[in-house]
Amino acid sequence: MRTFKSLLTAAALIATLTSVHAADKSPTFAKADLNSVRTLRERGLADDTAWRLVESLTTEVGPRSAGSPGDAAAVAWAKREMQRLGFANIRTMAVTVPHWVRGEAQLAVLSPWPQPMPVLALGGSVGTGAEGIDADAVMVRDVAALSALPAGAVKDRIVFFTNRMERTQDGSGYGKAVAVRATGPALAGSLGALGVVIRSVSTSDDRFPHTGATRYRDDAPRIPAVAISNPDADALERQFGSGKPVRLRLYSTSRDLPAAQSANVIGEISGSDRAAEIVLLGAHLDSWDPGVGALDNGAGVAITMGALNLIQQAGLKPRRTIRVALFANEEFGTSGSRAYVAENQAEADRHVLGFEADFGAGPVWRLSSRVNPAQLPVVDEMLRALAPFKLARGGNEASGGADLDGLAKLGMPILSPDLDGTKYFDFHHTADDTLARVDPAALRQSVTAYAISAWLGAQYPGTWEKVTTPKAARR
Amino acid sequence: MRTFKSLLTAAALIATLTSVHAADKSPTFAKADLNSVRTLRERGLADDTAWRLVESLTTEVGPRSAGSPGDAAAVAWAKREMQRLGFANIRTMAVTVPHWVRGEAQLAVLSPWPQPMPVLALGGSVGTGAEGIDADAVMVRDVAALSALPAGAVKDRIVFFTNRMERTQDGSGYGKAVAVRATGPALAGSLGALGVVIRSVSTSDDRFPHTGATRYRDDAPRIPAVAISNPDADALERQFGSGKPVRLRLYSTSRDLPAAQSANVIGEISGSDRAAEIVLLGAHLDSWDPGVGALDNGAGVAITMGALNLIQQAGLKPRRTIRVALFANEEFGTSGSRAYVAENQAEADRHVLGFEADFGAGPVWRLSSRVNPAQLPVVDEMLRALAPFKLARGGNEASGGADLDGLAKLGMPILSPDLDGTKYFDFHHTADDTLARVDPAALRQSVTAYAISAWLGAQYPGTWEKVTTPKAARR
Repeated sequence: MRTFKSLLTAAALIATLTSVHAADKSPTFAKADLNSVRTLRERGLADDTAWRLVESLTTEVGPRSAGSPGDAAAVAWAKREMQRLGFANIRTMAVTVPHWVRGEAQLAVLSPWPQPMPVLALGGSVGTGAEGIDADAVMVRDVAALSALPAGAVKDRIVFFTNRMERTQDGSGYGKAVAVRATGPALAGSLGALGVVIRSVSTSDDRFPHTGATRYRDDAPRIPAVAISNPDADALERQFGSGKPVRLRLYSTSRDLPAAQSANVIGEISGSDRAAEIVLLGAHLDSWDPGVGALDNGAGVAITMGALNLIQQAGLKPRRTIRVALFANEEFGTSGSRAYVAENQAEADRHVLGFEADFGAGPVWRLSSRVNPAQLPVVDEMLRALAPFKLARGGNEASGGADLDGLAKLGMPILSPDLDGTKYFDFHHTADDTLARVDPAALRQSVTAYAISAWLGAQYPGTWEKVTTPKAARR
Repeated sequence: MRTFKSLLTAAALIATLTSVHAADKSPTFAKADLNSVRTLRERGLADDTAWRLVESLTTEVGPRSAGSPGDAAAVAWAKREMQRLGFANIRTMAVTVPHWVRGEAQLAVLSPWPQPMPVLALGGSVGTGAEGIDADAVMVRDVAALSALPAGAVKDRIVFFTNRMERTQDGSGYGKAVAVRATGPALAGSLGALGVVIRSVSTSDDRFPHTGATRYRDDAPRIPAVAISNPDADALERQFGSGKPVRLRLYSTSRDLPAAQSANVIGEISGSDRAAEIVLLGAHLDSWDPGVGALDNGAGVAITMGALNLIQQAGLKPRRTIRVALFANEEFGTSGSRAYVAENQAEADRHVLGFEADFGAGPVWRLSSRVNPAQLPVVDEMLRALAPFKLARGGNEASGGADLDGLAKLGMPILSPDLDGTKYFDFHHTADDTLARVDPAALRQSVTAYAISAWLGAQYPGTWEKVTTPKAARR
């Protein structure tokens, strides 16, 4: 304990010594580069380019799930908008994507008290066949509770998962709750169940079910799986509370079509003396189909494109290349970022620093990282340059997002300007993910924070060291 | 002006003289009756009978539009619950109701930017036929703007009404906005349009369309009419903003079935020395079909039944009879209250005072009235008895609600404990009208305010005078 206190004292001393530097002085960054931070901040907080991008993407394209006509329209949109903004080296990279279609789905309680309930099939779910499924239901909290049931308990039944997601600013409630959606149907199928109904992985009391990918196992039957909203899950629990058998009817026409073609869309500002090194700004271009993908992930597309545009419009010439990569099909298997890593395998080491925006429209409230520990002081200096935004300092286990997984495994450092997720899971993966959920001021702040972080990442006079620790589990 | 000021001064003087009476003293009400007010308040604010009623109605019955299986289930539920609560003279009164079924509806923007938009058919709308309707759209603000267009402007087109409802505590924004829904389709049909899309009469940015009745005219073609949510209406306006023709595809299987049987459900506490006089607590039992009718009008059912139960459980014996009437089919033509008036025509004058609860789950924030002006001081005394609730004094032009229209036309006085409508039109007539929207504390307060008002109305030592002024337009 005493040793720990001494360490804290030493750390506090170092912090004090470091903090005597004003925001425009730094032991690392050039004064001119810090002056440019001020320029970016002033311009960024008055710039609605990102707003116009998310407005345009949601209005002119809208839903764009992998393989759909909207997906192709989104690729054309992104290429056109990058051209309009004058990005350099614009190109598309072909990506083969799975093509699942939702069809329609219906759920009805047959007894004790007949009621219909709005549902969404989980992404990738098989359908029920034309006759649907009528079966008694078994209520369990989560996958652990399902695993603990006696053998045969769910055979020929529909399994209803009741666990409710917790609301948090950093979205950590999602990681805890999402296992039911990702693995619940596979587990239930392996136990002989006929179908699955989950309480949506959602923090809202609105009556919108949330979709999202489920993952079947090769060694278990694939059974249909749908989500109901929180108020319907509450109502279904009350039906169970009657003590009488709860019988459900499930119908869904979800199905897989042959794989389809999509594309990553890439554009950049070329670097000067260190142009071979790439600072990557990643965001996925696809969305789930029920909404128009404003928060998930029109906002991320707008933040990354808006940040690159902001740096360019300020007339800044970065030392390293800053690249925006809009990835195909994050939602149903991260096809685009996987293809990107495969195609850039020989040049993976050129990706010296990665950012991702895939958590709504902000504001940024914290700066997290996943850098070589020796370079944590550099992150601290970047945080000081962002002082007007009053960001918290996050830990050094940032994931960035799912599309950075591949490069992170190869050791790419990550900077994560963390977007406020308090309300994100009220709307995420629902029909209600619309432009009405994007706050223009929060979006401007987010673009500006990303631009400043990316700019300093590109100007860093040292070498971004590889990270050798394993990447933490995705938030 | 001087005369007006003198009147004000005189009124203020009278108010001052009147207000020296403490809450438990009154020139009108007996001390014992005012003591009972305290009992009702203390018991009511601790009583969750109303909550359990709305929970039960929404869980065990759910959607209950006129003529549907849920409608019949609701009648059985109400009779059973009145029996369980020990109401007197429980009976049903047969009511013939129209039986419209929603079927399914779809809307898609075909150009300039293809997008689907969730819709709800307006109540009573005809369908499109299996082939649907493909047509260019004309955007207008409201009925007045449509009327002002040149002849032929909407012939063979779909008319899109854009007017947005204003949010207010008293719900007055609804009356201003609802004309588009009620009469817009009839007008558009008379002008040769093929269909109508309205911006929902809603204050919410959630992506829920709002349904509600439309009224066709006998002298104009009946054309299909649907509502889209506010965010979709915004998106559709942006499509018009492109300057290109906006083409829509509308599909709906809505249709009328033969008239069906439903019922009003009635129960009461019999009065003592003035039992022939009735204080009426009205609420409609039906709901629109997309939600489970928690706010509209499970809450009203629960408030009126909860208030009667509260008086009874407190052991109070009212002088006048206090009657709860749960009316069939308010939503699509007030069939139940019309039948009630027709059946009680000879006894209409026995209904000496009416209340209605049809505006959500509270809290009560104001006491309005429609009484003979000579009896306004009695209302002021009732307001004083409600002093702990800090209610505002409303005007003397209260409507009460649509189901009081018939009796009000015959001169029945109305007392209106006004329920807070600030958020009501976020959920009203949508799939999102669920139990999650009912706040137990607000509901308890509302029940208590209704019970106290009804109790004092039943104990009033004088005679409730008929009202001879015409009833104001419904809010």
